[in-house]
Amino acid sequence: MAEQRNLSINGDRLWQSLMDMAQIGATPKGGVCRLALTDVDKAGRDLFVDWCRTAGCSITVDRIGNIFARRPGRNNDLPPVVTGSHLDSQPTGGRFDGVYGVLAGLEVVRSLNDLGLETEHPVEVAVWTNEEGSRFAPAMVASGVFAGVFDLDYGLSRADVEGKTMGQELARIGYAGAAEVGRPVHAYFEAHIEQGPILEAEGKTIGVVTDAQGQRWYELNLTGVESHAGPTPMTRRKDALLGAARIVDLVNRIGLQFAPRACATVGMMQVYPNSRNVIPGKVFMTIDFRHPEDGTLAAMDKAMRDGVARICGEIGLDAGIEQIFYYAPVHFDDGCIEAVRKGVAEHGFTARDMVSGAGHDACYLARVAPTGMVFIPCIDGISHNEIEDATPEWVSAGGQVLLRAILEKAGAVA
Amino acid sequence: MAEQRNLSINGDRLWQSLMDMAQIGATPKGGVCRLALTDVDKAGRDLFVDWCRTAGCSITVDRIGNIFARRPGRNNDLPPVVTGSHLDSQPTGGRFDGVYGVLAGLEVVRSLNDLGLETEHPVEVAVWTNEEGSRFAPAMVASGVFAGVFDLDYGLSRADVEGKTMGQELARIGYAGAAEVGRPVHAYFEAHIEQGPILEAEGKTIGVVTDAQGQRWYELNLTGVESHAGPTPMTRRKDALLGAARIVDLVNRIGLQFAPRACATVGMMQVYPNSRNVIPGKVFMTIDFRHPEDGTLAAMDKAMRDGVARICGEIGLDAGIEQIFYYAPVHFDDGCIEAVRKGVAEHGFTARDMVSGAGHDACYLARVAPTGMVFIPCIDGISHNEIEDATPEWVSAGGQVLLRAILEKAGAVA
Repeated sequence: MAEQRNLSINGDRLWQSLMDMAQIGATPKGGVCRLALTDVDKAGRDLFVDWCRTAGCSITVDRIGNIFARRPGRNNDLPPVVTGSHLDSQPTGGRFDGVYGVLAGLEVVRSLNDLGLETEHPVEVAVWTNEEGSRFAPAMVASGVFAGVFDLDYGLSRADVEGKTMGQELARIGYAGAAEVGRPVHAYFEAHIEQGPILEAEGKTIGVVTDAQGQRWYELNLTGVESHAGPTPMTRRKDALLGAARIVDLVNRIGLQFAPRACATVGMMQVYPNSRNVIPGKVFMTIDFRHPEDGTLAAMDKAMRDGVARICGEIGLDAGIEQIFYYAPVHFDDGCIEAVRKGVAEHGFTARDMVSGAGHDACYLARVAPTGMVFIPCIDGISHNEIEDATPEWVSAGGQVLLRAILEKAGAVA
Repeated sequence: MAEQRNLSINGDRLWQSLMDMAQIGATPKGGVCRLALTDVDKAGRDLFVDWCRTAGCSITVDRIGNIFARRPGRNNDLPPVVTGSHLDSQPTGGRFDGVYGVLAGLEVVRSLNDLGLETEHPVEVAVWTNEEGSRFAPAMVASGVFAGVFDLDYGLSRADVEGKTMGQELARIGYAGAAEVGRPVHAYFEAHIEQGPILEAEGKTIGVVTDAQGQRWYELNLTGVESHAGPTPMTRRKDALLGAARIVDLVNRIGLQFAPRACATVGMMQVYPNSRNVIPGKVFMTIDFRHPEDGTLAAMDKAMRDGVARICGEIGLDAGIEQIFYYAPVHFDDGCIEAVRKGVAEHGFTARDMVSGAGHDACYLARVAPTGMVFIPCIDGISHNEIEDATPEWVSAGGQVLLRAILEKAGAVA
């Protein structure tokens, strides 16, 4: 293992690749608009494929458009170690979300070439189709098909607002591949920006991702009585907005009660009739609960339902509560987590364990393969925004850790 | 005074006049759309003027279109006792708001005729132009000009959404009168539906209106930090909606603290970006405070500003607070209130003192003449709505009280 201590990726090359890729779909404000399966996405895919072929990889595209760039191992009958992420972006996205994981994987391949290192298992860099879900809902649909969460037909039939399906658009841009979707994977790693503020705030360079939060999403409809703000005494009101306000505070208290790993958010509220001098008769609102443990999510659910019933009972409101989305918590593979920790330790990076608050392709891959994730900080925790940013040092450090973790699982040939 | 105990209006005639007038601008749902200075408003005015002439009145129209139907007194050098309200309605208004006060006044004149009663002062029935403010803002503009709150030019230049001014529209429908706006009034009475639920809920027939609430209206802009609902820990959030929610609760507590006469309402809220999985970064909201005493309104203002500062300090929000509207409290004339009480007592109606939560032409008249108001219940407290309703008994009772109050001030000739 002594020789591996000095193994290094080329951080400058990785940074330059990120900046080159960011030209494709570049926005005036310094971000990226590379919606899934558009001409811009095709251009990004073409550039990636070109780079991979130059690096000696063979390319496979599956029927849902996932791209796999393969560097052979010594034993090509063994399942590959796969790393990657996505090239598609939000409409006003940044230069790092997704593309960082793809190009960090490419940099690992390039570095293995530079170092003349052979691995026991093949190593593949994956590009998962339509991770963001901005053009075709739901998000992470193609890694979901790979992991058996969704049927292939379901994935191909997802349509954008104009009615164009993923299947049609894959064929149009030339990425409707022939390979079956899904096959054995020895291990999967994904490098990603944190998309939150913790690492930067604590001065840590690497996040060792142990879990991804489960999610429960709700829609609430509160109904009171609309009436004139002047002649209606305080004690005779059934103010739907007062109930909604107390539920916002309840949701926040539930989040704090189950902190530090819980998140609880009311992001959306519509007030009816929304007039200055009319007591609101109806409110629509959403709740987003996240926690890495299903039992805690269930406890949050109960606390919310009990609290909503109490609040609405006090004010005299009717409440309709519907859970519209459930996403199971993920615990990543202990062996993969350990491989990431080794990379951190060898390079002496500052690090901390983390729970991913957002969904990633890795969350679906974790269902079918040992999986781990590597987070690097992003400036001010800002993501899904054109000003999304990261430093070359962070970008390079994540690549170093990824290289070491992949070697751990793919087996460096002595 | 013995003979006056048996004085009575004709409740059936008053009800029939209300139903006849409700045909002008009638809506399919049983309400009325009679926007100020439209052809429909002109038809309503014409019918009123015709009825008044038939009742022996002379008609004067002033330069802002206010109509005065005069029944002479014994001494016509004395200023008149005036009663009335408005004939214009909300776009989806009801059959009673405003028109009840006008036609109750007409019924008083008709009843004085039937009874052969002469008064010392002349009695006039007034129709105030554009009380609702639905077509031309602000509300109560023509009684405001009469009371010197607004200049005549200001009133005439008010424009609707198409740019048509009140002056143009008065001329077009033939109600741009020649009379100067404003002159001495001996006393002013206005009968109106309550537009709230109190009388009906307490089983009372008459509201003796002692005061009208002052109003302070505010706009608040709260600014926090928009961020991803997943990876942003509870303790690192600056959630503008959490602040807004606590302010809604604060406003409600302020209303209860100064109950029973205070009203405090958040009617409007806009959340940005209003997305399920984004912590809100900005909220716009309104506050409506009402109380019959200016000092209490000032105390409510201070409690709100202190509370908003504390809440926003706790969460880390910036708050902009702007008071956009102020309407002074009105205490009605003790002599006029007493005249209303006498009418209640003579007929043995159930009654209670009330504070008007809404604005009325009487609120401006109170600045230039001794003024009183008579409220009758409306079904379920509903107003500004096509289903606005009242019973013939309530309508008749209000007319009885109005007759007695007018006789008290106009002086019945023995």
